[in-house]
Amino acid sequence: MKIIRFRTSKREEIIDITGNIDNLIKDNKWLSGIILVYSPHTTAGITVNENADPSVKEDLSNFLKKLVPQNHCFSHAEANSDSHIKGTLCGFSQSFIIEDSKLQLGTWQGIYFLEFDGPRSREIWVKFTPG
Amino acid sequence: MKIIRFRTSKREEIIDITGNIDNLIKDNKWLSGIILVYSPHTTAGITVNENADPSVKEDLSNFLKKLVPQNHCFSHAEANSDSHIKGTLCGFSQSFIIEDSKLQLGTWQGIYFLEFDGPRSREIWVKFTPG
Amino acid sequence: MKIIRFRTSKREEIIDITGNIDNLIKDNKWLSGIILVYSPHTTAGITVNENADPSVKEDLSNFLKKLVPQNHCFSHAEANSDSHIKGTLCGFSQSFIIEDSKLQLGTWQGIYFLEFDGPRSREIWVKFTPG
Repeated sequence: MKIIRFRTSKREEIIDITGNIDNLIKDNKWLSGIILVYSPHTTAGITVNENADPSVKEDLSNFLKKLVPQNHCFSHAEANSDSHIKGTLCGFSQSFIIEDSKLQLGTWQGIYFLEFDGPRSREIWVKFTPG
Repeated sequence: MKIIRFRTSKREEIIDITGNIDNLIKDNKWLSGIILVYSPHTTAGITVNENADPSVKEDLSNFLKKLVPQNHCFSHAEANSDSHIKGTLCGFSQSFIIEDSKLQLGTWQGIYFLEFDGPRSREIWVKFTPG
Repeated sequence: MKIIRFRTSKREEIIDITGNIDNLIKDNKWLSGIILVYSPHTTAGITVNENADPSVKEDLSNFLKKLVPQNHCFSHAEANSDSHIKGTLCGFSQSFIIEDSKLQLGTWQGIYFLEFDGPRSREIWVKFTPG
């Protein structure tokens, strides 16, 4: 498994990691199969979304804040129950296809790390299985 | 990777693709492993749900429309921010088990393509890894 | 594919299955690859979340009940449309990395079965692909 390390800069942040994943595929000469892009955190997620208009990220971020408000009446004492719930709703990992040594994404797709409780040091774990 | 092509007919539509996936498995003689059923779009999703009572699809569709209204105050200019968000919440792909050359689904499970911004020409990409 | 069988005891319940998955990996001597942890049901889900403070589970459970109320105006006659929708939102499966014969989880991560329409007899299917 390969590890990507980075630091987020805000409580809620959506970070394009498509280039990092692309580089891993090239560096490791993965030819054909499936990769799992996995977040080892409980207050962050991984998703796919549009890579063209930045307002899509903004709309997603604002919608999630409204859907799961930080100040909702929660029991958990760390004031980040909203972050755990957003992780479960958006997903902690995504799988992608590699074909002819290339990450197969739709025309408008990018891969995003969803920070729900930053700023923090974060990791993404990536595992390849051939097929 | 194998591609399934089809056309959706409405803005919001839930399409049973279980038969298409079954046929791919038979045609390609995949014996045992995992398949990734992947949507290369940013305004559609893939999910699993009940294949018996059609009202389950209707309830899911109506609930998602109410949860993420199209006319919510969004920035993105194409009037489909709701579709992007529904994609993130429901997921852009699902993985399934193949055993003894057969797709392993629970008794009541079917695989569904979720159209959130149709009608459009759509694709589903399917990749097999043996195990 | 390997099967884990158990019985849930309430309508809504969040059950830690990390130990069961760990045991499967040891028993089957899976060394390195990806495992798919799959629920063959339509009114349950699989997620990852914090394994330390039990109030995180409680907050998730209460939030989902409020987000998708059982008594919402649904068509499906079995009074469990909310359970189907929660399944789609949280996901019916999760994939995990195995490295050096060990399940790779973040420090605070546990794997959870989400019962949305119990009490019932339930199964989890687990499939390994090497990589």
